[in-house]
Amino acid sequence: MLYPSGMRLRIAITVPYADYARQWRDEVAAQLPEAEVFIDDGERAVADYAIGWKPPPDFFERVTGLRAFLSAAAGVDHLLGHPGMPADLPIARIEDGGMGAQMAEYCCAELFRYAQRRGQYEEQQAQGIWKQRGYTPRSEITVGLFGIGVLGQRVATAIRAFGYPVIAAAGSSRVEDGIEVLGPERHDEFFARSRVLILIAPLTEATRGVVNRDTLAKMPRKSWLINVARGGLVVEPDLVAAIDEGRLLGASLDVFETEPLPAGHPFWTHPGVRITPHVAAITLPDEAAAQLAAKIRQWMAGEPVSGQVRRNRGY
Amino acid sequence: MLYPSGMRLRIAITVPYADYARQWRDEVAAQLPEAEVFIDDGERAVADYAIGWKPPPDFFERVTGLRAFLSAAAGVDHLLGHPGMPADLPIARIEDGGMGAQMAEYCCAELFRYAQRRGQYEEQQAQGIWKQRGYTPRSEITVGLFGIGVLGQRVATAIRAFGYPVIAAAGSSRVEDGIEVLGPERHDEFFARSRVLILIAPLTEATRGVVNRDTLAKMPRKSWLINVARGGLVVEPDLVAAIDEGRLLGASLDVFETEPLPAGHPFWTHPGVRITPHVAAITLPDEAAAQLAAKIRQWMAGEPVSGQVRRNRGY
Repeated sequence: MLYPSGMRLRIAITVPYADYARQWRDEVAAQLPEAEVFIDDGERAVADYAIGWKPPPDFFERVTGLRAFLSAAAGVDHLLGHPGMPADLPIARIEDGGMGAQMAEYCCAELFRYAQRRGQYEEQQAQGIWKQRGYTPRSEITVGLFGIGVLGQRVATAIRAFGYPVIAAAGSSRVEDGIEVLGPERHDEFFARSRVLILIAPLTEATRGVVNRDTLAKMPRKSWLINVARGGLVVEPDLVAAIDEGRLLGASLDVFETEPLPAGHPFWTHPGVRITPHVAAITLPDEAAAQLAAKIRQWMAGEPVSGQVRRNRGY
Repeated sequence: MLYPSGMRLRIAITVPYADYARQWRDEVAAQLPEAEVFIDDGERAVADYAIGWKPPPDFFERVTGLRAFLSAAAGVDHLLGHPGMPADLPIARIEDGGMGAQMAEYCCAELFRYAQRRGQYEEQQAQGIWKQRGYTPRSEITVGLFGIGVLGQRVATAIRAFGYPVIAAAGSSRVEDGIEVLGPERHDEFFARSRVLILIAPLTEATRGVVNRDTLAKMPRKSWLINVARGGLVVEPDLVAAIDEGRLLGASLDVFETEPLPAGHPFWTHPGVRITPHVAAITLPDEAAAQLAAKIRQWMAGEPVSGQVRRNRGY
């Protein structure tokens, strides 16, 4: 027992879907049998820690006694933009939780589809045409990862195994695990070299709208965009224009400025846009609960907790 | 110089497309500068070795002096079924030549598309529907490789890296590189366990029509077929029936009983069938020429040559 005798550790679960909330409660309870784990029901409550994402607007008024919030999503923009979020409440986020493997698979699926000219072959099948297109050596298809955190690293490893050159853009220039990482002073070069651009960075004031008219204009002709991060990284009308002008061949989008994607949005019907409803990586409660429970134990033991959010950088 | 002085090594190139033949000639000549490398032009000629695939029907009558044929294709059914093929002419086939990586990528693309329910999401986009479907743990999607040669091994390695269980079917039961290989006495079990079935075996008398009404009926419901080997492995009308009955969700086919796929063939328009025009793996002359040239040197030096075809087993 890490908790003082006579008192019970209390953990609040707050996630948008009821089924999913129950699954989280059960998994967390299994990981921390000494704790009382309960689902936030909209009433006043006392808890030591909260686990979840997108807490309701009045969550932090009602639920008191919190020592930290553990985000079940890798992106914490939903917390940092929360109007009731206490300025001094520590936040830690899930660092993989089964998402890295899923994102790697999603990005590979879309990358391979582009490299293998599947769009052309699907059109040919629809038209009854048998015609072999050329083969592009993978060494000529540079993949640029905008963001190279835990998830980006995982995606990079998967892609490199298939022979694609990988570069990354981040807050500073360096070489990391053999990957050339370009800092802000070289981001123009980053966009110019990325034939397939993958967005896998947090949404912060520094990254909002980073894919826009200017940066898209720097990309190679007939290139491709994959966004598995946050919709706010992309200026959506600029993306549509870039595809219409032939700068980009198209885009695979899992995230959007507004979700669910509103009816009538041009992405729904644009022939160059492939959309999925924010499913590229689903946090799996069984894997994620074990990781977040471990973080709670670390906090209680006064040990360093990885994945802590630094408010000043925004993730 | 490996060749006796005063005589020049002569190599005939025979491939169906003129552009491709020139590329092969140049690459082979670069690898074997001591040789005279020429493209078969339909006339009588003398050559020590022939490199290519699908030689014309009269090739072996016209081109004499051959000591061996080097197949630029991994499958040698085009040679063993050739009416003029001398019964005692040694044959060696390309063992990878850049094809392993391409086949791995092709198979992963189709596997991921199936596992990620992309067909459903494409339909949803067409209908303007935002709906998150469930996630199937990769541990529940067993991939069965029918064939586990050089190319099959490569495909298996790529797929296992993403967490899918892989089993294989071959001529004998064994465990190879950690993969459970099921021999003929266990092929019923192999089909029953394969949620995604990948055909990557040579076409022989033993494998012709192996995917048929009986074996398809053993597969799990809503499973998927990927064929990157030879069309003759599949009884095509039985496959259409299995999809129509809901046994299979669909199939990704790169090869067909007759190529080009004839106009009016049901595969062209079947909603469950994805076709590509035999492009899953293209032999790359630069990589392949180096490998085949090395085999010629081995033959001339009396050294063992890998990738030799055994006529009695048919590959």
